[in-house]
Amino acid sequence: MFLVRICVIGSSGHYGYVLKALDKDCEIVAISPGFEGEDLTPLKKDLSKLGLSPKEYTDYGEMLDEEEPDIVVLNTIFSLNGKILKETLRRKIHTFVEKPIATTMEDLEEIREIYQQVKDDVFFAAMFGIRYKAHFLTAKKLLDDGVVGEVRLVNTQKSYKLGERPEFYKKRETFGGTIPWVGIHAIDWINWLIGKKFLKVYAVHSRKANRGHGELEATALCLFTLEDEIFASLTVDYLRPSGAPTHDDDKIKVVGTKGILEVRDGKVFVVDDQGFREVPLLKEGQIFRDFLRKVRNEGECMVTPEDSILATEVALKARLSADTGRIVEI
Amino acid sequence: MFLVRICVIGSSGHYGYVLKALDKDCEIVAISPGFEGEDLTPLKKDLSKLGLSPKEYTDYGEMLDEEEPDIVVLNTIFSLNGKILKETLRRKIHTFVEKPIATTMEDLEEIREIYQQVKDDVFFAAMFGIRYKAHFLTAKKLLDDGVVGEVRLVNTQKSYKLGERPEFYKKRETFGGTIPWVGIHAIDWINWLIGKKFLKVYAVHSRKANRGHGELEATALCLFTLEDEIFASLTVDYLRPSGAPTHDDDKIKVVGTKGILEVRDGKVFVVDDQGFREVPLLKEGQIFRDFLRKVRNEGECMVTPEDSILATEVALKARLSADTGRIVEI
Repeated sequence: MFLVRICVIGSSGHYGYVLKALDKDCEIVAISPGFEGEDLTPLKKDLSKLGLSPKEYTDYGEMLDEEEPDIVVLNTIFSLNGKILKETLRRKIHTFVEKPIATTMEDLEEIREIYQQVKDDVFFAAMFGIRYKAHFLTAKKLLDDGVVGEVRLVNTQKSYKLGERPEFYKKRETFGGTIPWVGIHAIDWINWLIGKKFLKVYAVHSRKANRGHGELEATALCLFTLEDEIFASLTVDYLRPSGAPTHDDDKIKVVGTKGILEVRDGKVFVVDDQGFREVPLLKEGQIFRDFLRKVRNEGECMVTPEDSILATEVALKARLSADTGRIVEI
Repeated sequence: MFLVRICVIGSSGHYGYVLKALDKDCEIVAISPGFEGEDLTPLKKDLSKLGLSPKEYTDYGEMLDEEEPDIVVLNTIFSLNGKILKETLRRKIHTFVEKPIATTMEDLEEIREIYQQVKDDVFFAAMFGIRYKAHFLTAKKLLDDGVVGEVRLVNTQKSYKLGERPEFYKKRETFGGTIPWVGIHAIDWINWLIGKKFLKVYAVHSRKANRGHGELEATALCLFTLEDEIFASLTVDYLRPSGAPTHDDDKIKVVGTKGILEVRDGKVFVVDDQGFREVPLLKEGQIFRDFLRKVRNEGECMVTPEDSILATEVALKARLSADTGRIVEI
């Protein structure tokens, strides 16, 4: 098998997915910041724990010119990921990119256009790694098997501990907003699990109680209308107390014509005409292993470029709704 | 103690609260339908189980003229409760009335005006009996004690089994809608537990999958903006499967600056900087006992006329939003 050569841009996101999935046929050949002055210390520390010390560039353009990697792992500050993605796609380099894949509609539209031109040669996927947790894979299987019948209503939750975030989280311009950064995961679940078209969104968000985090929104609610009069809610907060047993509290509830499925506390529950039961979990997956499989032409990746574009679009339109107080068509 | 004389109008709602709270100093002296042809069989059956056989009138006006009761229990078909409430208030009879207290804004505004004129002499309360369940009383105590700090976000859920409902549920004109009939409880919780002003609402609802129930909405979502940028969500469905262990699945989650409180499965949980814990429940209360206490001048009733008007107003405005697709100011 040919060696997959990987470059990492930035140290501000979920490069951890990549470090956990490296195999003997792939290698991180070089790293660089996404912009002058980005601190690469976290990434370099984690690499050195694995005994890795790839070449370090100060300029990602130079790195891409010199190294001609097969894959770029792109996770710099959030507002730059979309701008750099345009460049990696134009260069036809497969890109594993932090979500949201853009923080402005302009960048997203350009990405969509560029991708249309290069799609036969290049693959990319957003870091929707939560899909691969055992409880979400189990939910997906159950829903595909029709356990709830026809879906009518979906409730989702993202709740995170805030702690102390880096400076760039405190500015909308660099952070992008809590709906695109946190809420987008639940938007992706809805898209992936239900597979229905999003038609419109009404959303609200607030910066109050963000514990000194400037423009970061501590709370948000979104209400999505999908086709067939299916509705979906999303509640987001950064107020999970420090004493909570886990960093995050992900939840989804899917209400259908035959039953109700709930994912909470890492478990899956179904209630239907036969009663209430906890469902044994499928095995956990791993997003970057799936990504590698696709790049190596060994199979499909569950997160597609289309999914990555769609979830970003819906998140940015929810943010627009919350910013303007208007209902936004999708 | 003087004997409290009670008349019951209608057999289509929660008169059960009254039957469970009767004491030796009150008596159901007469019953009548709310309109010609209302079937009083359920009420009469339940009365006879208690060994009671009050006088039966065919016309409630005649009953009120003849009996001059201290209290009217008003629970006919939902669209008539508000119309009859206007009459009982004008007659200065204390009224324990089914929620919503009106199914049109016109009726509600008239009730508000009449109540302003008679408020020194008469009391009324909507049947928000769920407040008195042990888990909700416990949540109220914890929130009043400041366990979550400043409230920032509230998520509520009402999920019911549908079964086979009477004919009048199948017409908006007589039923009033699922948000005013079911969702209103959660609106009342938000008002009662959080005590902040509702500013606006965006809501959606759908009649799909209502299993032959005509115009009854099987699903709904509401997004409320309260003062101080506090947000509240409400999900409502009539799709709880017949095999579920309980008829209803009430939930509320209150996210604050110091902690998160959750009510689910009849239990109360708090997570804060000290960790996660289940909270022992307070003793259950009973709404009609509370109502009697107020009427007898022995204390206050936790559900006030103002609460009853407010929750109805918010529910009708949420229904208006869902009917029109517009954001509605409250």
